[in-house]
Amino acid sequence: MSGGSAELVAIGSELLGPARADTNGSFLTRRLGEAGIAVRFRTIVGDTPADLEDVLRNALRRSQVVIATGGLGPTIDDLTREAAAAVLDLPLDEDPSILRDLEDRYRKRGLVMPPQNRRQAQVPRGAEVIPNPHGSAPGLALRHVGRLLVLLPGVPLEMRTMFDASVGPMLPASGMRFATRILKIAALTESEVDHRLDPVARSAAPVEWTILAAPGQVEIHLRERVPDGGGSPGIDRIDRQCAAILGDHLFGRDEETLEEIVGGRLLARKESVATAESLTGGLIAARLSSIAGASGWLAGGMVCYGEAAKTGLGGVAADLIAAHGAVSAPVAEALAAGARATLRTTWGVSATGYAGPDSGPEGPPGTVFVAIAGTSVRRHAALRLPGDRAAIRKRAAQSALDLLRRAILGGDRA
Amino acid sequence: MSGGSAELVAIGSELLGPARADTNGSFLTRRLGEAGIAVRFRTIVGDTPADLEDVLRNALRRSQVVIATGGLGPTIDDLTREAAAAVLDLPLDEDPSILRDLEDRYRKRGLVMPPQNRRQAQVPRGAEVIPNPHGSAPGLALRHVGRLLVLLPGVPLEMRTMFDASVGPMLPASGMRFATRILKIAALTESEVDHRLDPVARSAAPVEWTILAAPGQVEIHLRERVPDGGGSPGIDRIDRQCAAILGDHLFGRDEETLEEIVGGRLLARKESVATAESLTGGLIAARLSSIAGASGWLAGGMVCYGEAAKTGLGGVAADLIAAHGAVSAPVAEALAAGARATLRTTWGVSATGYAGPDSGPEGPPGTVFVAIAGTSVRRHAALRLPGDRAAIRKRAAQSALDLLRRAILGGDRA
Repeated sequence: MSGGSAELVAIGSELLGPARADTNGSFLTRRLGEAGIAVRFRTIVGDTPADLEDVLRNALRRSQVVIATGGLGPTIDDLTREAAAAVLDLPLDEDPSILRDLEDRYRKRGLVMPPQNRRQAQVPRGAEVIPNPHGSAPGLALRHVGRLLVLLPGVPLEMRTMFDASVGPMLPASGMRFATRILKIAALTESEVDHRLDPVARSAAPVEWTILAAPGQVEIHLRERVPDGGGSPGIDRIDRQCAAILGDHLFGRDEETLEEIVGGRLLARKESVATAESLTGGLIAARLSSIAGASGWLAGGMVCYGEAAKTGLGGVAADLIAAHGAVSAPVAEALAAGARATLRTTWGVSATGYAGPDSGPEGPPGTVFVAIAGTSVRRHAALRLPGDRAAIRKRAAQSALDLLRRAILGGDRA
Repeated sequence: MSGGSAELVAIGSELLGPARADTNGSFLTRRLGEAGIAVRFRTIVGDTPADLEDVLRNALRRSQVVIATGGLGPTIDDLTREAAAAVLDLPLDEDPSILRDLEDRYRKRGLVMPPQNRRQAQVPRGAEVIPNPHGSAPGLALRHVGRLLVLLPGVPLEMRTMFDASVGPMLPASGMRFATRILKIAALTESEVDHRLDPVARSAAPVEWTILAAPGQVEIHLRERVPDGGGSPGIDRIDRQCAAILGDHLFGRDEETLEEIVGGRLLARKESVATAESLTGGLIAARLSSIAGASGWLAGGMVCYGEAAKTGLGGVAADLIAAHGAVSAPVAEALAAGARATLRTTWGVSATGYAGPDSGPEGPPGTVFVAIAGTSVRRHAALRLPGDRAAIRKRAAQSALDLLRRAILGGDRA
């Protein structure tokens, strides 16, 4: 394949333990895809020199581009430099300008560099040094009989910055790229989406089609190999077909989130929102406030976890709870209305229910009511959500945000 | 090493895309560790026959136990059977009892098996068939010059059930297991922990020592190879040494979280807590309410995102904000005191600050004040937190929970 194929190597014994995932792989796969380079292998290996050399040797045998992350720090466990030099049979030289930079970093903080940090200035002969603006370990790029071996730190922020600034331009030009798009779908199950989109999926080729389910949303991942600088006509065609079938269930694309879409809409309409959460205990407010500039449209909210908080803080009449139970549509709507009244906002949004593991008087775990309130509109959704405590809470927050999104989109006057 | 070392191979082109993680690896690593077998390599490869064979060949060269997951289904992309047979130079035979089982599965649902599903009855000659109680694809175990190659489906539930029922007993007996422990440390940076624990780390062997930083906490991961059925004396020794040095900075072990520890303490003392969050926008309440049974000690809380919410809902005097700014120690303490007064709890906990990307009048992003209030105690911490918006918010929530934990632990009367 022109542009070649790539292998990702994640280095570090901690990545082989059960507790850690390699989070750099997704980023690198996406960026390489944008350059038309397919990742064919991903390998994780520990800090044992022989294992590390074995993996790098294999990778250089079978892949044109090898990107290794981790093992460039100052400690005795950081062996990537040595392994790369051994595999390519290159001597290691001390680079005086790296050494100066390292010493400067310490001097600026009023410290003397520990002697072991000098290791970070070791460079396999002929390597290109990749500056690291966010950390002490520089990256290294080595070219060897038509192969490109790039060594980057494992710290995601450092790795990403260095890749975008320095590694992208080194990649072999393919004249092609992988265009990708993610379609995000709310309020339908995976099998409902699968069923409705079946004719689109069957005629998707040459676009690759993958359907994935996450709590509270379903995603369609599309990928198409297209010439550089051009559009992605196959993806555009499929996007239009899906949008026509799914209507407002299709809520966003790529990195867009429900909270971002809701916030953008509120900002554009000069409207505002407040939350009143029982079941979700702050998750809805936390998601809304995760958006930069949220103070322009998020006034605040209430976590009405106990019953006293529902009547006191939330302003729900005690006899409403007595009549319908705390987990009920009337209480969900009263919470939403209470939030907007207390915080004087255009909209209120709420969630009440049972996250489990115990059942409540009104139903089993997953019995959930979400609601929204505006000046002249109140709306709720009664849900039976699957999953464990965390999944139920996450799905409930997602459903509440989706209810709000559709009320705003639907042109409802608040 | 007795018991040998293992390699995990995850098979499927979808696992090479940016969206998917291999979730089977953690389970297998844990189970193999319990059998005293270390995972030295993990590889992800797509459904290309040559790539798949290359990976299996490498794995069998360097590892005693190879566990491959995925690619055993009925479709044309499912090539693991063929690749294993090719690498071990074995013919594929149709197994009549597997075929009968497959046909039975369809018959029971009133269906006729599609002809392509017959592929799932193909078995490399001499392989042991591993029953799959939850799905149609059986697993296969192949022994080859002292190596064990196990092929399992990629569906987590099927894979786990089959591993526990059939694969565990096939593993080479080592008489040993890996004991592990995670020590969790709050309110110290990675380099502070590294410095204080340096003497312990240096004398940790034969216990493996790894230090990891996550937003707001530092973890020490310990691993020790010990005889089956015995304790882990090395880990116990290191745990005691770390506890003596770190004091109440060491907040938990293994899966314990700050919110769980705070909740447990409050429950034991029959005390309660309420939150008032600006910067963290509900994250603190969401973490506390994630604990099952939180309604026993979490009354609720307030998200005081805008200034009106701070004075109205939060009960902070407007002239306090005018005098010190919304991001200040007095306002943080007033929010904590307001939360406990409004919700009539033993404790109040709060956070205010700038998450960025913009700076505020009182400082740059990362300028944060967290506070707690009890009947006769108010306490705050002034912080300069690193990272992006999400990291600052997460670290602030962690710092607030840690301040609360230490106030409770310290025997402070609320």
